[in-house]
This record gives sequence, structure tokens and C-alpha cells, in this order.
Amino acid sequence: MSPKNLATKILEAHLVKGKLVPGTEIAIRVDHTLLQDATGTMAMLEFIAMGVPRVKVELAAQYIDHNLLQTDSKNADDHVFLMTAAQKFGIHLSKPGNGVSHQVHLERFGVPGRVMLGADSHTPTAAGLSMLAIGAGGLDVALAMAGHPFNLPCPRIMGVKLTGQLPPWVSGKDVILEMLRRHTVKGGVGKIIEYYGPGVATLSVTDRGTIGNMGAELGATTSVFPSDHRTREFLESQGRGDAWVEMAADPGCSYDEYDEIDLSQVEPLIACPSSPDNVVRVKDVEGVRVDQVIVGSSVNSSFRDLMTVCRILDGRRVAPHVSFNINPGSRQVLENVAAQGGFMSLLLSGAQVHQPGCLGCIGMGQAPGTNQVSLRTFPRNFPGRSGTKNDKVYLCSPETAAAAGIYGVITDPRKLGELMEWPAVQNPDTYVVDDSSIIYPLADPSGVEIVTGPNIVPFPDFEALPAELTAEVIIKVGDNISTDTIMPAGNKVLPFRSNIPAISQFVFEQLDPEFPGRAKEKGNGVVVGGENYGQGSSREHAALAPRYLGIRAKLAKSFARIHKANLINFGILPLAFKNPADYDTLAQGDRLTFRNLRGLVADGATEIPVQVNGREILTILDVSERERQEILAGGTLNLVRNHD
Amino acid sequence: MSPKNLATKILEAHLVKGKLVPGTEIAIRVDHTLLQDATGTMAMLEFIAMGVPRVKVELAAQYIDHNLLQTDSKNADDHVFLMTAAQKFGIHLSKPGNGVSHQVHLERFGVPGRVMLGADSHTPTAAGLSMLAIGAGGLDVALAMAGHPFNLPCPRIMGVKLTGQLPPWVSGKDVILEMLRRHTVKGGVGKIIEYYGPGVATLSVTDRGTIGNMGAELGATTSVFPSDHRTREFLESQGRGDAWVEMAADPGCSYDEYDEIDLSQVEPLIACPSSPDNVVRVKDVEGVRVDQVIVGSSVNSSFRDLMTVCRILDGRRVAPHVSFNINPGSRQVLENVAAQGGFMSLLLSGAQVHQPGCLGCIGMGQAPGTNQVSLRTFPRNFPGRSGTKNDKVYLCSPETAAAAGIYGVITDPRKLGELMEWPAVQNPDTYVVDDSSIIYPLADPSGVEIVTGPNIVPFPDFEALPAELTAEVIIKVGDNISTDTIMPAGNKVLPFRSNIPAISQFVFEQLDPEFPGRAKEKGNGVVVGGENYGQGSSREHAALAPRYLGIRAKLAKSFARIHKANLINFGILPLAFKNPADYDTLAQGDRLTFRNLRGLVADGATEIPVQVNGREILTILDVSERERQEILAGGTLNLVRNHD
Repeated sequence: MSPKNLATKILEAHLVKGKLVPGTEIAIRVDHTLLQDATGTMAMLEFIAMGVPRVKVELAAQYIDHNLLQTDSKNADDHVFLMTAAQKFGIHLSKPGNGVSHQVHLERFGVPGRVMLGADSHTPTAAGLSMLAIGAGGLDVALAMAGHPFNLPCPRIMGVKLTGQLPPWVSGKDVILEMLRRHTVKGGVGKIIEYYGPGVATLSVTDRGTIGNMGAELGATTSVFPSDHRTREFLESQGRGDAWVEMAADPGCSYDEYDEIDLSQVEPLIACPSSPDNVVRVKDVEGVRVDQVIVGSSVNSSFRDLMTVCRILDGRRVAPHVSFNINPGSRQVLENVAAQGGFMSLLLSGAQVHQPGCLGCIGMGQAPGTNQVSLRTFPRNFPGRSGTKNDKVYLCSPETAAAAGIYGVITDPRKLGELMEWPAVQNPDTYVVDDSSIIYPLADPSGVEIVTGPNIVPFPDFEALPAELTAEVIIKVGDNISTDTIMPAGNKVLPFRSNIPAISQFVFEQLDPEFPGRAKEKGNGVVVGGENYGQGSSREHAALAPRYLGIRAKLAKSFARIHKANLINFGILPLAFKNPADYDTLAQGDRLTFRNLRGLVADGATEIPVQVNGREILTILDVSERERQEILAGGTLNLVRNHD
Repeated sequence: MSPKNLATKILEAHLVKGKLVPGTEIAIRVDHTLLQDATGTMAMLEFIAMGVPRVKVELAAQYIDHNLLQTDSKNADDHVFLMTAAQKFGIHLSKPGNGVSHQVHLERFGVPGRVMLGADSHTPTAAGLSMLAIGAGGLDVALAMAGHPFNLPCPRIMGVKLTGQLPPWVSGKDVILEMLRRHTVKGGVGKIIEYYGPGVATLSVTDRGTIGNMGAELGATTSVFPSDHRTREFLESQGRGDAWVEMAADPGCSYDEYDEIDLSQVEPLIACPSSPDNVVRVKDVEGVRVDQVIVGSSVNSSFRDLMTVCRILDGRRVAPHVSFNINPGSRQVLENVAAQGGFMSLLLSGAQVHQPGCLGCIGMGQAPGTNQVSLRTFPRNFPGRSGTKNDKVYLCSPETAAAAGIYGVITDPRKLGELMEWPAVQNPDTYVVDDSSIIYPLADPSGVEIVTGPNIVPFPDFEALPAELTAEVIIKVGDNISTDTIMPAGNKVLPFRSNIPAISQFVFEQLDPEFPGRAKEKGNGVVVGGENYGQGSSREHAALAPRYLGIRAKLAKSFARIHKANLINFGILPLAFKNPADYDTLAQGDRLTFRNLRGLVADGATEIPVQVNGREILTILDVSERERQEILAGGTLNLVRNHD
């Protein structure tokens, strides 16, 4: 047998359908599933609709980490719904305040070599533990929980060789920012990014997790790291040494494409407003006055990350005009930071330490003021995601964040070398472990009753694909439209995640608040988009809510992977312009006619002609046979139900 | 000279107008002012409108403790406005996350014997440090900051003799709940409650603070405790021993009325939904399943309170179905709890520890779910204040809260004696002190520019009292309507506290969402209320916003003190029914005519006749000459401006 790279080995071990030919559809067995509460209430409703009595995966986990503000009864109602449903179906439940799904899964559940499907685009954080962890829509995860394999276009494998060792004041975040600088938010589309080479061993599991997490920002299907002695160290420090297996690419294996990073040459980097790939050297923007700093949440919320900030702030004070915030990744991180004295350093420096959770990273509070500059260690800075219009959010490492806190302006963290030695924080040899906020599955759940609050509205009914379709262009948008723009998150919107009629009123709210009303009025609608349409978060509501409003097709130059899968799941046609120049000929209000649409989709047509303004344009329907059936049925859940 | 009680001595030392005859108007000099951010942005705008270059009190403090959620740019904009305005005018500024005003003022600024005016109804917490601390509307506090004395009806002094010592598992909260059980939410109206007797020395400053805080729930003007060796201990433990002076009633003094509590006989008590005076023994409601517990915020957030909970939870776990939350009163409290190991006990028990601040106490998050039972150590449980409709909020001591956390049901905390000794926590001999989040006044503020965000709208213009008035009854409400009901707080509404046009859209939202629209449409309006109208929070917005909507008079059986003063401040007539039975004859939609209104008010008439439905009813205008001038001018700010 020819030598294989690690991603291929894991895919092969899980392959249940298809061949590992990039671009063709494959199906893989799923070992772990991950739900959080923003996507999880709807996914749970979908799972309930399937009528399966207990999850059929090795480990299913439901985290409550997004909707923590509890500004009215809806959040707490959702928490009880998820807790009781988890108990009913054999799902591990991580209570509010226990931490961000990605960090907790690394700590307590992750196993090298397993495939995980998560209804959160940052699921690939588990790359740090050598899992093949993929973000998907909630329905895909619900299907996996019900025992179905996960279908996806077989990705290309990009091998990134790491050499050297990071210099002081530079950390994992700077590595992934370097990747974003090189490859942009579209550079990873259709790819698994596999890191290898001698530099890997210089990175801890949590630094690898940081790099895996923000592989999502490259558009990658996922990322993966080898499982080595550092992996074993981490699992042993968590009291889970038994879970360790060694995993690596075969010597002499090849990749579909290559890149290389000499870690010793990486400098402190920063993503400027308002895209994660708008990356420059911190040096190049030094001196910009900073109003707010936030360390933690989805990424850079590990022990090493927070303790590094503690050591930098120890005995110092943040600048008086700066609001300096810490969002620990987990209760465990906070406990270990506290056990080593870091909590007091933070408090005495003037930092605000929040409960573990996603918080400002998903727009649940922590919005900066008008025209304020905010430095965050978060993975994303899409416009308005912070909750503030015209926000100025920068993404950086914990080191760069701490430096800005002390100096009050953006500062290359290497300047801290004038004040102190580089703290070189290592993760603990033995973590304080506390699973008191995890509720384990019951052996006998027959006595559990699922508690459904008044805001939890059942999944809507959708009609099958019609024979002919006439639809109006309800909105035309540009390139790189993220799911944040399509379906905003934040504290105002997230409480409606289990209520499609209510949440659909916020679709495209930033771009055009009249969109929902206009779409509903027109009956059938189409959205026209540019390149990389639907990047970012995995939220299926960005497909589900438009479908509820009558959107039947999206025409774009290209689609982001998860969003395209979500469109199909809810019966929306993802059509790519055969000739991208046709994008320019379309305008809001145009009426499009799709003749013999149902017949074309059923017959396997890859070109779908569209009549508009007296001419015809061609669009590409690049979907698998299975996906055709889903589209014809009006969505995957209809198809699954029809088969029952 | 005849012996005097302590309240009289402090009043006399500050009296600048009138005589200490209960019910007559007096004016007193103000030493300290307290603003928080929910009332403070408007108060600051009012202060700015007065054109005074620097505050004219011994100490002015501005706290940022309410609007911490930052769900959009408004909160952070307000913070910057308050920070820069504080710097401009010589005001101490406590940054977000530094803690609740009342706790921080005790710790860092309070001085025995001083008069403090605070734009927060729980300002009387400073009774614990023997201050005469009175809650008032923001405009009254702004006037005090500008050097004006504070006008109020001279209160009666109620002497409450404390004897004995509290038994284990019983604490200050149970004492004030006993007062509420005896006297109800109206029992303190027009009174200062002075505690004296041998039992006082058994109570720490912070336990006294708890009792003073919730004197507001009795409707009292304020409460006061002697300054004794316990007071000196506390100030010394804060490194402020110099601030101590001994203060006590003269032996043999008398009071206007009397009560007595034998502390040794106090049992664990609990206020049931939904009024602080709905008090029963914890024993009587044992076994009720509890979904949420919150310790801290405005009251019971001191070191003793939190550390008691830490000791109880140490090595134990909260029941899995309970959401157990800790809201520390201040950064200092959290630091001292952490320094003594309590923080780890909380985390390991499964508690969620939040940043110091008001949080759920003012409906900024932490809303319970539908039909959930919430036990809180907060001072208030008015309906819907939690953010949840039909909420079931109980008020109790930290001990009772901790017991409910462990057992998952309401439990008499004395049952904890089966598990452990009563921890008998004392406040530290020497606190960890950290003023890093207090911004001190500048010697030269000339370089400071006040930053005013887009949501900060100048104070509206109000017309003077008209010669004749015809107005319609826009709403008729019942007894004990709180300012929470008139002008809701919570995360949705509080961000508009500096924007009267916007916030007025929420007036009476719970009772009748059509109220704002109807009031605006009718032009001139009247509100009809029952007994104790306007109890609770000091928020002047409960007068200011209705006035903006056209409300010119409120007719009620009786008024709560602060709200009545606020009505006058904004030119609304506070009219009491001469014959309370007339209340029954009025209905929404009735048109009232006030003939020669301006003349009557100007001429000192105490009876104001009102024509309605072809008959005449009589109302009482019980206001001072000064207040008549304010009403005639259309509000106090008009009057102050006219005099410039």
C-alpha cells in the first residue's frame, strides 16, 4: 500500500459510501456529535421529529454555552428543554457556565482519530486532539445522532509542513492568522488542512486547537494534527491517558497540495476590521487607541492562553480607559487558572472576568461603543457581529491583547519584553478536573419528560419542489456574504432559534430590514449572491428561515460548503452561475422562471436554465443524487419522513 | 437640652431650612452624592443643563453597575459619557465590573454621620456605616451636586430596639424580612427607622447594610444605625480607620414610635411572590422545587454573605437541576473571597460566578424560565422585575439560598446543621483593597472632553402648568403599583435611560402596551392609582417618561415619597383623593376638567376640585411652597433655569 496522509487514513476508516476522489460525494460514519444551544434546540426538534428513541453514536454531547444572557424566560426555557431532551435520548449535557463546547470537548470527551460532526462551524477545534471534526448544519448532526452517516463532497487534502519553533510572544493564533493572510477566507474551501512536520511537536494540544478552530475561517472542511506525545501529555493531564492512540501520516505520503510555515519566522499578526483574512503585522497598526479588549470565548480561552494573560498582567494595571474582559473557555480553565493564582492577578489588574461561555464572540453582550476599537482573541470579526453597527473589531493573540490592555493602544507584544521575561506558560501536568456541571446519560430514561417552553415551536412544514417555478429576486448581495449577514446572531435574535416564524423576521436585517416582509409578500423568492456565499457560522437557520419566507433558490457565483448543504437540507436550490458575468445582469425585482424544474432536477440535469428579462441564463446545480432527492422532497426531513 | 435620637442629631447638623416637625418641609445639606448608570446618565444631563463647572459636595460618586450587558453600542456609549463627564466635573467614577454602588460606597467612601443623597432607592444601605443616606430622583441628586440642599418632608423617627443575638443560620436578611412581615411595604412611609439597643453590636456593618438597604422596601425615607466599635472595625479593615467617628442616640432619648426585635427569636424567613412583604417562615414553604438561586447584587453581596455560601457549598454540589448563581457585590468582595479560597469552593460546587454588578436584580439577564421558581437574596420581587412574565421570585438570606441549592427545594437552612457546623463567617480583619477600577477626580479637568454617544438625547422641554386643564384618564391602576410597573427596567429598556422619547414607549408596558400610544394621542392625560402609588425604585423616568407622553396629573389614594417628589420635579400634579371612595367612580376614558388650576396652585390651595362626569370630586395637593413653584414652572429644571 502506498503511504497515506493522516486525513486519508481517518476518512478511510470511516468511509461507508463512495471513494476518496476529491469532489465526489462520500459518506462517513460519525463517532461523536456536538450540539450547542443556539443550533441545538432546532437540531433537537429535528431529532425528535425522526422518532429515534436514543442516539446511535459513540458519544453525543449537548453544550449550553451561547444563550447565557437570560434577558427573558426564553433562554432558561431552552436550557430546560435541552437538559430534559438530553436525558431522554442519552446525550451528555454540559450545563450553562461549564464552558464553550470546543474547549470542554477537548478536555473531557475528545478521542484521537474519531470523526465528530458538530452543529457549530468551530467544531474543528478538536483537530488539536487529532479528531476529524467537521461543522455542519443542525439537521445533519441530528441525522448523525439518529445513526445516519454524514454525506459530503470528498475534500482535497492540503499538507502544511511546520518547521522551527515559535519565538517568544508569538503563539498559535499568529500561525492561523498567517494562514489567513496567505490563503484568505476562501483558501480552504473543499479542503482538509493537515499539519505535519517537526514543528508540530512544539505546539501544545490547545495551540493546535486554536489553529484547527480558525481553519473554519479559511473555509476549510476541517483541519487535523497528528496525535503524538503532546497529545498523550494532554490526555494524561486530564486523567484520560487511556483515550490516547498515536496517529500520524505515513512517512513519504503525499498531499493534494502543499504549504509550509517556518514557525520561527512567524510574527505577531492581527486581523483588521472586518474580515479574519484582513491580516497585517501588529507592528503595522501600532498606536491605534484601544477601547475594549476581550480574551477568550471560542478560541484562545484555554489555560495557556488565559494564564499567559495573567502572568503579563500580574502586578500591573490595565490602562484606565480600556475595558479589559476575560471569557474563560471552561469552568475547568477558570479553576486551573484560579488554582495557580491567576484569577487574583486578573482581578487586581482591573480585568472583568466573566462566566465561561461564548458571550461577546456570538454577540451575546460585550458590544463595543460607537466608533470604539475592540481587540479580541475571537475567531471572527464580520461586520456587526459584535452587536455594534460599523464596529471596528480586530482579531489577535492573547499576548497582543494583553499588550493592548497595558499600553492602551495596539502594541507589538514583543515590547512587553522591556517589562518582563516571556512567561512561556505551559498547560498543567495535571489539571484540576471538575465534571460537576456535566449531566451524564441515564441508563433508563423512561421516566424523563421533555419540558417544552412556549417559545419552542415545532419544525415548519415545507412543500416539495414544484414542477415549474416563477420567483422574484428579493435581494441581490455581493461577495463573501456570511451567515451572520443572512441570519444575524446576537442577544436579540438567538433566543428565537427554536422559533422559525419569529426568527425569520431578522433575515438580512443589517442589509435590508424590509427583506422578510417583501419575501413573504412575493410568495416565491430568489436571492442573488456573489463569491463564497454563506461563509462563516454553520447555522442552518440561514437556510431554514429564508425557506420559511418563501426563498426557493439562491443564485451565486460560488457557495460556502456548510451553507450549501444547509440550503439543500431545507429544499432551497443552490445554483451557481455558469457564466459569472450573468450576476451583473440581475437586479432586485427581476422575475425568474424555471421551466420543467422538477423534471430537470429529477433527471440529473447539472445545468438549470433560467428565463429572465426575455433571455436565458444557465446555472449549475452541482449536487449528488442523494441531494437531488432531498431537494425534490422539499428538504431532507421530508425525505426522511417519507421513508418512514 | 433634652436627649436626642441619632437621626435627629444628624438631621439637625445638616438642617438649612425648616424645623424638625414631622410632615413639614425641611431642607438639609448633602455631603455625598451617589449616581449609578441607570439613573445617572439622565441626572448627568440634568447637571450639565445647570451649567455648574464642578460638583459642590464633599464627595460625589458615579457607579457603573446596572447596564453591564452591552447588547449593543448603547451601554458602552453611556459608560464613556459617564466616565468623561465624571472627570470633567470632579466625580469619583467606579468602572463597570467594580461592583454595586451600595457595597462599594460602604467599602471605599462612606463616613459615619454624613448625609448622602443617591439616585437609587437602595442608597440607605449606607445606614450600615451610620450615614443618613436617602434615595431620590436623579434631578434631586443633580441639584445636590450643584450645591443645592435637599428638600423633603421631615420624617417621623421610628426607634427599633434590638436585643439578643441572632441564632445560627439566621442573618441580617431575616431581620429586615421580619420588619417587612410586621410593617408591610407601606409601614415605613414618611419615617426614618433608627435601630438601637444591645442587639446592634452583634451585627456587622454589612449585616446592618442589609437591613438599611431593604428599609427601602418598607417605604422608609431611610434607616440608620449607631457608629460603634463594629463600625470602627470595618473602617479599619478597609484601611480607613481615620474616617471613624462614634455616633449614637443620647441615653434616654425618645422616638416618634417604637418597635422591638429580640434577635434570638428571629427565624429564617422568606418573602413569597410577588411582594417583599409577603413574608412567611421558610419552614412554611419547605419542599417547593427550586429552579434557580441567585446570591448577591444589591443586598447580601458582601464578603460575609458570599463566604457563608462558599463555606456551605465547600466540598458539596448544587442539585443538578438548579442554576446556582453568584453576583458579587464588588470586585473587592470577590478578591477577598478568592483570597480565602471561597472562589474555588463555589466553582467546584457547580455555581456560576458572575462579574460584580446588579445583573438579574434589575432584570439585566438571569431571567428564570416559564413557571420556574427562583430564590434570590435580592431586595425586591415585584411582578415581572425578573424579566419573566408571571415570575415566581422568592427573597431570602444567603443561608436559605445555599440550602435550596444543595437540596434543590426550599429548605430551612437550619437543616444544614445536619451536614456541618454553622460557619459563623466574619468579615476580614484586613481586606484586600483594590481601587484600580476607581477613576479619581482630576485636579485640572480643563482638557477633558465629554463624549456623548448617539443614544444620549438632551433633556426634553416641558411647558409650564396651564391656566385650565382638561385631561383624559389614560389608565386606572390598583394599589402598590411600583415604579417597575410604571417604567420597566431590564435589559430591553435600561439602555434608553438617556433617551426619553425612546424609553417612554415602554411606560406601563406590562399592564397595557397601548398606554404610550393612547397617551400621546390624547394630548393631556391623567393616571388614576390606588394606595402607595409609585413604591420601589427611585427611577425618575417613572415620572419623566409619562410627562413626555402628556401626563399632567396623577390621582391616587396615596403616593410613595420618592415618586411623589419625582412627579413634582417634572411638573406632574400628585393629587390624593380627599375621599378615597372617589377612586371607584373613575374609569379609563373619563375626561377631567381642572378649572383655574394655575391660580389654585399659585394661591396655595390644598384642595383642587376636579369636574368629571357632571360632578365634582376633591383632591388634595399636599406640597410645599417650593414644590408649588416647581409645578407652576412645569418642572424643577425649568424653575432652576428661569432663576439663572
